[in-house]
Amino acid sequence: MNVDGKPYRTIWLSENGSDVRIIDQTRLPHEFCIASLKSLSDAIHAIRDMRVRGAPLIGITAAFGLGLAMRENHSNSALNDAANQLIATRPTAINLKWAVDELHTQLLNITATEREGFAMRHAQRLAEEDVSICSAIGDHGLEIIREIANKKHSSAPINILTHCNAGWLATADWGTALAPVYKAYDAGIQVHVWVDETRPRNQGASLTAWELLQHGVPHTVIVDNAGGHLMQHGMVDICITGTDRTTAGGDVCNKIGTYLKALAAHDNGIPFYVALPGPTIDWSIDDGLRDIPIEERDGNEVSHIMGGNSAGEITTVRLIPEGSRTANYAFDVTPRRYVTGLITEKGIALASRESLAALYLRQCHATLLENS
Amino acid sequence: MNVDGKPYRTIWLSENGSDVRIIDQTRLPHEFCIASLKSLSDAIHAIRDMRVRGAPLIGITAAFGLGLAMRENHSNSALNDAANQLIATRPTAINLKWAVDELHTQLLNITATEREGFAMRHAQRLAEEDVSICSAIGDHGLEIIREIANKKHSSAPINILTHCNAGWLATADWGTALAPVYKAYDAGIQVHVWVDETRPRNQGASLTAWELLQHGVPHTVIVDNAGGHLMQHGMVDICITGTDRTTAGGDVCNKIGTYLKALAAHDNGIPFYVALPGPTIDWSIDDGLRDIPIEERDGNEVSHIMGGNSAGEITTVRLIPEGSRTANYAFDVTPRRYVTGLITEKGIALASRESLAALYLRQCHATLLENS
Repeated sequence: MNVDGKPYRTIWLSENGSDVRIIDQTRLPHEFCIASLKSLSDAIHAIRDMRVRGAPLIGITAAFGLGLAMRENHSNSALNDAANQLIATRPTAINLKWAVDELHTQLLNITATEREGFAMRHAQRLAEEDVSICSAIGDHGLEIIREIANKKHSSAPINILTHCNAGWLATADWGTALAPVYKAYDAGIQVHVWVDETRPRNQGASLTAWELLQHGVPHTVIVDNAGGHLMQHGMVDICITGTDRTTAGGDVCNKIGTYLKALAAHDNGIPFYVALPGPTIDWSIDDGLRDIPIEERDGNEVSHIMGGNSAGEITTVRLIPEGSRTANYAFDVTPRRYVTGLITEKGIALASRESLAALYLRQCHATLLENS
Repeated sequence: MNVDGKPYRTIWLSENGSDVRIIDQTRLPHEFCIASLKSLSDAIHAIRDMRVRGAPLIGITAAFGLGLAMRENHSNSALNDAANQLIATRPTAINLKWAVDELHTQLLNITATEREGFAMRHAQRLAEEDVSICSAIGDHGLEIIREIANKKHSSAPINILTHCNAGWLATADWGTALAPVYKAYDAGIQVHVWVDETRPRNQGASLTAWELLQHGVPHTVIVDNAGGHLMQHGMVDICITGTDRTTAGGDVCNKIGTYLKALAAHDNGIPFYVALPGPTIDWSIDDGLRDIPIEERDGNEVSHIMGGNSAGEITTVRLIPEGSRTANYAFDVTPRRYVTGLITEKGIALASRESLAALYLRQCHATLLENS
């Protein structure tokens, strides 16, 4: 998508192949900074410190990270070690593990000297695939928005509520939850996005708002507390969020607070869709509440917040009394009964094992065989 | 309650009667500041800028404000004007209007020169009544907590989730939602409070955490998004919130986001109680969603946040991109079907017209007669 009118991806190999470039997402919306990853350690820190984030993007970054690791030391032990370190950076998103495991296996089966080049090409291919997947999610989601627009007997815009950032910054391009929004906007459908700020890290207020602004999509930032009130008063036509992991049965694990919005949508008869690429489906588990590990992050993310001060500098302020404790669960699980549908690159599925399996027949069977 | 071991109220007349003193709640938790109100204009600004907030406390402050107004000019026209200005400061809390209307009528019926003294004594009496009311709410709520403690077959603390600040800082003393917590703590029951930070103004993170810390009550600050996840995992035994206005039918209007927590409590079979003094009941309306005006506040409260910087100074930082819009609804309505019970100074009521009317028979009848 465009930044100041110039097309960007979130991650790419530099022209001479010497390093991997990323948009440093911890500086947005205050500064637009391109950062350079030159080593495995750079890649690990970028993922852990959330300079890159979003399930699809961290999978791609981890693949590039393996490439950078092989440049430093292409031995089997270095490879195994790098894979383990990368998987440990973020425990909830399944496609991080999926991307690393797949590439790890392939690298073990080729000559050590070929590993760096193979991994870099693989990471680039993952990025290209992600763009295609997200574009297809956008096309399928566009039809849902178009249908709502056709039924709405007024010229008012379609109000879409989203939580966190599942836009192009969370992927290589297009995004997942926001891909249908961009496609609808580009197709001339009037849309307006309610952007949950998404405490504690405020990816909505800082990233979703920023990318919508860059693309010219009308939007309003609200606190995470506000969505229920808006839904009670007919100010939301549809909710669309992303997901970091989806179970084979259709439970959805996404940024903390997603569950609360799904409850409110359900209570007010508003469709609640979740957009996802196939790789975020974990075919090995069914019950998301029981089986998905929920990452606990540093309590400083709750007690402190970063923003721009009046001098335009990025600064951190403390929000709570010295001496008060914090807890910081990063994700929650929305049970399938509150999900109207799953928007995937293969089409729309109901949030059920049968419907998902019908769309992804081969992947589902392969996992069942593997686990049997 | 105590601040650094010394007992305080939130508002009082200075010893020589020359001014009204308040704790400036916009400086907490970073600074403990006593501010002085010397005029009607000071009182209006204190309410509007939320140096005092909380439905009971703003009612008392408004009564003192009328006293200060009468000191400046005790004419009928000054009185009418002061009453109108005070009522207009905050539109949602009903006991502001109730306190001003009652005192306004009484002042019109006495000699102009007596008005200042009468209003000051009245405001002090309101504060004393509020302390008694809140203490009684605490006693009734304590029994609910004790019952949960008796049923819990472990030595783990009772986990209480609260939203915003309905502690002693929202009243003259004791608080509404937190009064049962203080009474339980003082009675030796092990309690632990999950404190919702309560964006946009963070009254939970800044005020609830601070007052619990001062009293020694164990607590953990969480983002507003986290409560649903905690409830799904058995980490909340009971929710207790306050309310700014309660309808005769039992709908509850409280800080934005309360509704989302009530939905999560309902979904997980967790009792959701609302603590309230009689004066927050609006006997003239039944349907809270339809009939309670929801205050919209300045969008700067969403786009910016105040905190303490590393030098210990209170500073404001910007959270969203320049160019993004914000919306800032301050309250939402929780329909009675999600409220387990109402903890009042007269005992526990169900959230229904019948149950509330049975507790407050006289007030209810008086309003019905007035409106007939």
